[in-house]
Amino acid sequence: MADEMQKVVLAERPQGAPTDANFRLESAPIPEPADGEVLVKVQYLSLDPYMRGRMDDAKSYAAPVPIGGTMEGGTVGEVIASNHPRLQPGDKVMGMLGWATHGVVPANQLRKLPDTVPISTALGVLGMPGLTGWYGLTVHGRPEPGETLVVGAATGPVGSMVGQLAKARGLKVIGVAGGPEKCALAVDTFGFDACIDHRAAEDARALRHAIAAKAPNGVDIYFENVGGKTLEAVIPLMNPHGRIPVCGMISYYDMGGLGMGAAEGPNMLPRLWRTILVQKLSVNGYIISDHFDRLPDFLREVAPKVADDTIAYLEDVADGLENAPHAFMGLLKGKNRGKQLVRVTPAIA
Amino acid sequence: MADEMQKVVLAERPQGAPTDANFRLESAPIPEPADGEVLVKVQYLSLDPYMRGRMDDAKSYAAPVPIGGTMEGGTVGEVIASNHPRLQPGDKVMGMLGWATHGVVPANQLRKLPDTVPISTALGVLGMPGLTGWYGLTVHGRPEPGETLVVGAATGPVGSMVGQLAKARGLKVIGVAGGPEKCALAVDTFGFDACIDHRAAEDARALRHAIAAKAPNGVDIYFENVGGKTLEAVIPLMNPHGRIPVCGMISYYDMGGLGMGAAEGPNMLPRLWRTILVQKLSVNGYIISDHFDRLPDFLREVAPKVADDTIAYLEDVADGLENAPHAFMGLLKGKNRGKQLVRVTPAIA
Repeated sequence: MADEMQKVVLAERPQGAPTDANFRLESAPIPEPADGEVLVKVQYLSLDPYMRGRMDDAKSYAAPVPIGGTMEGGTVGEVIASNHPRLQPGDKVMGMLGWATHGVVPANQLRKLPDTVPISTALGVLGMPGLTGWYGLTVHGRPEPGETLVVGAATGPVGSMVGQLAKARGLKVIGVAGGPEKCALAVDTFGFDACIDHRAAEDARALRHAIAAKAPNGVDIYFENVGGKTLEAVIPLMNPHGRIPVCGMISYYDMGGLGMGAAEGPNMLPRLWRTILVQKLSVNGYIISDHFDRLPDFLREVAPKVADDTIAYLEDVADGLENAPHAFMGLLKGKNRGKQLVRVTPAIA
Repeated sequence: MADEMQKVVLAERPQGAPTDANFRLESAPIPEPADGEVLVKVQYLSLDPYMRGRMDDAKSYAAPVPIGGTMEGGTVGEVIASNHPRLQPGDKVMGMLGWATHGVVPANQLRKLPDTVPISTALGVLGMPGLTGWYGLTVHGRPEPGETLVVGAATGPVGSMVGQLAKARGLKVIGVAGGPEKCALAVDTFGFDACIDHRAAEDARALRHAIAAKAPNGVDIYFENVGGKTLEAVIPLMNPHGRIPVCGMISYYDMGGLGMGAAEGPNMLPRLWRTILVQKLSVNGYIISDHFDRLPDFLREVAPKVADDTIAYLEDVADGLENAPHAFMGLLKGKNRGKQLVRVTPAIA
């Protein structure tokens, strides 16, 4: 009998918030790499909000995971066997191996990692989430010294990148996060000027007053990665010529894009739309996979700052692939503080 | 006794849709121009949706009209007396004289009009509405041949400009308008590929199906000048990298930005926001008064096309300043077909 690997497959599509029943842990023989392919043993799996979208059958920016298919995901790990001259056993690599202990992929789909920083950073602060924050802030946010920026999920890998970059460029940075512990981290670890606990605000209006008290000159950039109550709170605070880069909206993901009403009722679409006009806002949605060509620019600017601790990051690590579904459900509920990872420990290596 | 002029003042602020009681016709002595000033006799007053915003006390992009103040508005007319060497009696000029038969303004706030086209065009097809359409389409719409564009109020001065320019650039153009007469005009007079009667669609969903049937390849540019049901209909039809220039939203103006629910209920804010992300849309609000410096570029491109009938336009003319309030209320309800003007006839000239 061949050595076995584990993987987590999509058992059924969720109705609203995912549950245990949507996932199934399966075993399978470890595959052999063909010509040009590489066998990788996974060390860390990244859990990200976008994965919720892949579980639905709805029109989205990427094909859904099929029922019975392995959940998609970014991973870092070690080359076990290689049929390509560029990679050798022992090399550390980043690739999209999914929720699995092992995987075989063409060598050209793997990125070899340096050993100057922990390899887990390739999934967070120096990976897709970090690039998402850097790209959106730089290209769509167009930050100017003296301006005020608001970002949600402030201690997460996107929000903390956005906030730290904006601070370094001379902006006033106000975070929004769930709970006093995260808010303290945003200020103490990431250097935000202030952080508002959205759980302490009973509705969007109360959250708006709390943000406004810290933003007496209004908001020039709202970096959108959460949607929902935070969006509704910030809309009326936007200054003329404000910018709203839109990279995500975790609070809407469980709704299939169509669900629950807005916290202030049905008035918020006209209010948002009117603000876009009156304040001459620029709102730009983007999907970071369209912009992976900017990764070298991003790493050139940010990797040295991670290496010398100028830019901080925070990782939450769940242990064992079998715990990935539970950690993912927690992520969608905001239970993580920083970048959510799974330390993948294969039963048979 | 000096000669008298008439003016329409804001008697009280409207609650929702304006009524007769919000306006009052007053007489006053015709003022004398001081040094550098010019006395103008108004021939045409322009009525525009933005005036509804000026009647409210809410935060907007311009100061509200004070109670008892003359309603603001663009006008064209003839110089009666001049204390500035640049302008002579008999000159035709465009300026912001408001809802009035006469007015005195500094000469540098008047634009002298050519006699190659009727002077009323300076209020519509070759004025602020035409510039609004041209600027938004060119700068924010970034039209490409083969793309599909949707625009509301299709026979109005903004919508008809957008549609005709887009057709000339090789786009498929679908209008939305109220009633079969306007839809026939959009196709026959303005050359739209199709026009959907939003009154024949019982809700946003029905309107969406009607638009989708004419836009089998989806929508690349939604030029937003109406909001409401049309916005909600188009959102889910937007293609990746679609653009939404936002120059107005007449359907929300009577709401103070906060009113009535969306036609499909409270779900549309999340749905809009999710579409901006998933389809990577660019949404740009703009106010044309920020871009009057582009008027010469616009006139250079478009004025010859109006003179040689390559670009058509439609004017609805109400007779007499005393009828301006009624014509304005009709405009907000979509009763006009084209550019709404008032032919101003002073009681004493």
